[in-house]
Amino acid sequence: MITLVNGQPGDQISIHDRGLAYGDGVFETMLSHHGVIPLWERHLARLTRSLEQLKIQPYASDGLLDSIKEYLNPALQQIIKLTVTRGRGPRGYAPPEHCEATTIVTISERAQNSSAWQQGIPVTLCNTSYSMQTKLAGLKHLNRLEHVLASMEFSQCDFDEGIMFDSQGMAISATRHNLFLVTNSGLLTPDLSQCGVAGVMRDYVMEIAQDMGYETQIENISRRQLLNADELFLTNGVNGVWPIRQLDSNILSVGAITSKLQMKVAEVVPYCE
Amino acid sequence: MITLVNGQPGDQISIHDRGLAYGDGVFETMLSHHGVIPLWERHLARLTRSLEQLKIQPYASDGLLDSIKEYLNPALQQIIKLTVTRGRGPRGYAPPEHCEATTIVTISERAQNSSAWQQGIPVTLCNTSYSMQTKLAGLKHLNRLEHVLASMEFSQCDFDEGIMFDSQGMAISATRHNLFLVTNSGLLTPDLSQCGVAGVMRDYVMEIAQDMGYETQIENISRRQLLNADELFLTNGVNGVWPIRQLDSNILSVGAITSKLQMKVAEVVPYCE
Repeated sequence: MITLVNGQPGDQISIHDRGLAYGDGVFETMLSHHGVIPLWERHLARLTRSLEQLKIQPYASDGLLDSIKEYLNPALQQIIKLTVTRGRGPRGYAPPEHCEATTIVTISERAQNSSAWQQGIPVTLCNTSYSMQTKLAGLKHLNRLEHVLASMEFSQCDFDEGIMFDSQGMAISATRHNLFLVTNSGLLTPDLSQCGVAGVMRDYVMEIAQDMGYETQIENISRRQLLNADELFLTNGVNGVWPIRQLDSNILSVGAITSKLQMKVAEVVPYCE
Repeated sequence: MITLVNGQPGDQISIHDRGLAYGDGVFETMLSHHGVIPLWERHLARLTRSLEQLKIQPYASDGLLDSIKEYLNPALQQIIKLTVTRGRGPRGYAPPEHCEATTIVTISERAQNSSAWQQGIPVTLCNTSYSMQTKLAGLKHLNRLEHVLASMEFSQCDFDEGIMFDSQGMAISATRHNLFLVTNSGLLTPDLSQCGVAGVMRDYVMEIAQDMGYETQIENISRRQLLNADELFLTNGVNGVWPIRQLDSNILSVGAITSKLQMKVAEVVPYCE
């Protein structure tokens, strides 16, 4: 694994970093396909939006892509995790007036999961819910204890993912993927204005679907709607589109629309070779 | 400042620490008064409870107090921050089966604030609310972005603290203190079963108040109740009891019951010399 801290090889940060103290930062997880990062501009745009929302001072994004590319292996598919924290500060929630953001990059080899891509994955329903917070909704920030607790519910079981609900019982996402339903009235994906992470691939899939003639409705999605959907699939920037082939004890087949979208997404990058 | 990582002098941790990646850990902030840590047993008990709730494997608590005491300066009042994270792990929300907890200690000199102690502090009302999550309520965990955003609301103003509400509009706490109201029906402090941090000093003050003949009701507290209270005060393990002398534009005087409790708490440790 390659690790960079503020552009330099290294794997240590200060204990005074506010990313550690308060989860005061954001991250992106991206695929590198033979030295190219698909949707880089979208990842960078989301990162920038998230930092602005948290009022984290600008970090050195100029040259960031070049500095990452220098370490990519063109013979491999790799996973890049880019974390930006507010930087170091003294004890206390209020940030100091001047903080220098910390940028952390890890690059590791990607293990392909062709079975998940082709046949879909078994998914459970999590008890740990998302708390609702409009000021943080949509951001991929570092306060992820809810995701940790939700993941612990199924990590020892035969499920590859878990659907998380909000405190009102509405489906929001899986722990590391966004969620789509295919119904007889079209595509649906949960509204993320109160909680959840607005994935780069979620946006991209909605655009592709539109180009293919499928409108996506963003709305509150109940457990009942989830259980009654014709097709279900998950998206993220590393896996592209993964069908859900089992939801708790309900067996689903990989649907036609899911497959079409999956293939279209794979034209941008072969998530599964 | 003295900094220890896993008992050894040092100020760096791995970028693979889950405390940084997900805020997967907890912390305590304590006073040291001439080499003694008041309420140490209570702080340790809360830390242990919090770690158990997050299913973080036992850390090396044996000898922890001795190893901290070795670095305390008996001539000073100091602030000790003790952070315990789940430790290092690979990328992914689900913790690996075996994680070794990371223990971080910082010891810094305490700047006394005798004005806050004697005359109270001006406090505002924050817009940033607590999200409600029963699985994390009460814990002093590392997911503190809401506290960061709330603190940023008043850090440039003439207020020393801000009251945070839950998403239902109930008062929960200040950003770094618990909250008490004195009313004609006795002492009140917010119910923390949905959100907030259950402070060690909050418990201690409730016990002391009981010994003095004042029962504390733990309940939902509305904005109206807050604004109509006879006396208001804040508590934490570093400051003891701080009266509120101003709530936004409302001027309050330091009340008789607040002063009595404050003096009683100061018998355990002179928070203000």
